[in-house]
Amino acid sequence: MTSINTPNSKVFFSDEAYEALNKHLVKRDYSKVFILVDENTHKHCLGAFMGSISGDYSFEIIEIDSGEINKTVETCTQIWEVLSELGADRKSVLINLGGGVITDMGGFIAATFKRGIDFINVPTTLLSMVDASVGGKTGVDLGPLKNQVGVITEPVMVLVIPSFLKTLEERQVRSGFAEMLKHGLIKDNLYWKKLSKISDYQSLEAHISKSILIKTKVVIEDPYEQGLRKILNFGHTLGHAIESHFLNQGSQSHLLHGEAIAIGMILEAYISNKLLGLSEKAVEEISSTFIKHFGKINIPKEEVTACLSYLKFDKKNSHGDIKFVGLSDIGVPVIDILVPEELILESFTYYASL
Amino acid sequence: MTSINTPNSKVFFSDEAYEALNKHLVKRDYSKVFILVDENTHKHCLGAFMGSISGDYSFEIIEIDSGEINKTVETCTQIWEVLSELGADRKSVLINLGGGVITDMGGFIAATFKRGIDFINVPTTLLSMVDASVGGKTGVDLGPLKNQVGVITEPVMVLVIPSFLKTLEERQVRSGFAEMLKHGLIKDNLYWKKLSKISDYQSLEAHISKSILIKTKVVIEDPYEQGLRKILNFGHTLGHAIESHFLNQGSQSHLLHGEAIAIGMILEAYISNKLLGLSEKAVEEISSTFIKHFGKINIPKEEVTACLSYLKFDKKNSHGDIKFVGLSDIGVPVIDILVPEELILESFTYYASL
Repeated sequence: MTSINTPNSKVFFSDEAYEALNKHLVKRDYSKVFILVDENTHKHCLGAFMGSISGDYSFEIIEIDSGEINKTVETCTQIWEVLSELGADRKSVLINLGGGVITDMGGFIAATFKRGIDFINVPTTLLSMVDASVGGKTGVDLGPLKNQVGVITEPVMVLVIPSFLKTLEERQVRSGFAEMLKHGLIKDNLYWKKLSKISDYQSLEAHISKSILIKTKVVIEDPYEQGLRKILNFGHTLGHAIESHFLNQGSQSHLLHGEAIAIGMILEAYISNKLLGLSEKAVEEISSTFIKHFGKINIPKEEVTACLSYLKFDKKNSHGDIKFVGLSDIGVPVIDILVPEELILESFTYYASL
Repeated sequence: MTSINTPNSKVFFSDEAYEALNKHLVKRDYSKVFILVDENTHKHCLGAFMGSISGDYSFEIIEIDSGEINKTVETCTQIWEVLSELGADRKSVLINLGGGVITDMGGFIAATFKRGIDFINVPTTLLSMVDASVGGKTGVDLGPLKNQVGVITEPVMVLVIPSFLKTLEERQVRSGFAEMLKHGLIKDNLYWKKLSKISDYQSLEAHISKSILIKTKVVIEDPYEQGLRKILNFGHTLGHAIESHFLNQGSQSHLLHGEAIAIGMILEAYISNKLLGLSEKAVEEISSTFIKHFGKINIPKEEVTACLSYLKFDKKNSHGDIKFVGLSDIGVPVIDILVPEELILESFTYYASL
């Protein structure tokens, strides 16, 4: 896989990634190198990563507890304080080694520490490789509201090391697969068809760069989400609401991001059929593909309203309107769709009937 | 006073400011207008401000307690939550009506809420008019460490309403005067001479735009403080350390920002004499001017070390070195000066001897 240029950054793969990192560290002569990990990436990825760095640097490892529940302003405050105590300065760098929680939050911490220090993202989950690695979105949650606080700032480089995927449980890999399927749905019917036939998730490795390319093209054209970039939110309006609801229900089994947006894409495909003329055949194809891979989640009828209460916090909204991304065909997205509440409820009924 | 263009924003004065604001509000059609105030600006400024807005908008007032002690991440979290609850979206605007605490913190809150919404600064203190109004520095403190967390983002516009100065105590106005004197010291000997003769602080109003112009020219040339912009930190390396120390000593009377950097400028003038050949006459002129206006603060010998412990957190540092800005002459700054610790201690002894 060859490297990919994003608006202000560059994505490198495998051995070339380590080579690029080593060159960069020599060139920039950072005062200190901080590595942010969670207990999983500390155990499974840090050794291999550190082993591939040549040269003698002053390293500090900062470990946080894994999980979306820790992607908070409070965790940021703790890390800002640790950085201060360990003498981080404007010429220091933060390397974020982990999944989306680590790269989203670590990016925000670096972008705001002393008004901005360099950071490097090393995504270790399929989801963060194909999604969080490109586009510069950083942020943390505010209670149940996802990514409510953040900035758009790109890392100085992104290192994609597909061998880290072998350290993940299949459920984690599958979560990233949902975003890849989305890339097909919003941009490339052939890619969608090819991916939807896959049964061995480890073989997804070969498609990572294609997904990154699709996302990169969108982000280059519209970095600040004025228009086109919104298509990346297909499945996310309802997906995020469902994810927030499940995150807020301590007692329920929680949903991974990909699992939530898999449901969101089925719901929004149904809505697309009603409002944009997406064919019934396409809706069935989308539904059956996601059900095949992700199964079906029981969302009791009385909880649907609770899910919908999160919609008003969706970052795409303005002036009280809730705006969706839909499909008029597979590969053909339409943005800024207003959806009547009854139709949203109907889409949940459709999902329940599958 | 005519308006001043800054890198990505514009500063408007007095009646023209209200006119520009009213035009802007019509043009942008914000979903909601939030106004951040403290109890002082709520009482003394909000009425006049609201009275000058024509048109019918959906306003929400958010009030926080005044004072640097509240310029924290915790306060930000409370305001982010309030914004969420009140239905702020990406098309909302936050108007920061207050001194440096309100404009620094409000700017940070807006720049990070849903990854950035518009904000407008309406500085109500002399300090925030001449300093915080230009350059896009936003941020909050981390414990005693000043502005440790923030971003550089410019407001969409800055409104300078000098009549707000009449609502301030003289001590507050004098604090802003210190920054204006600094503008003379780093850029314009004539301006320094003119200002240092002033005895009626209300007459400073006439010089606000000159100070903003000096700062703007510097910031346009070097928005990200790679070089030139550092000159604005004259007096601030030791001034911030002293300010942090006093802020952290709950029992001691606290120092306003201008009062702390007034001391910092005397100390750094002394250091400039030793390292950069600033004449003794100039050092005396600088010392006597600041002592005349700001009096002398007793910093017990045993507390100097406590002050210096804050130096390592100075944002200009890297690789463990502490870098100062000095003067080789009045109006002629020199950046990136390394100062031996003994000389710093000597400068405190000099200050004590005045």
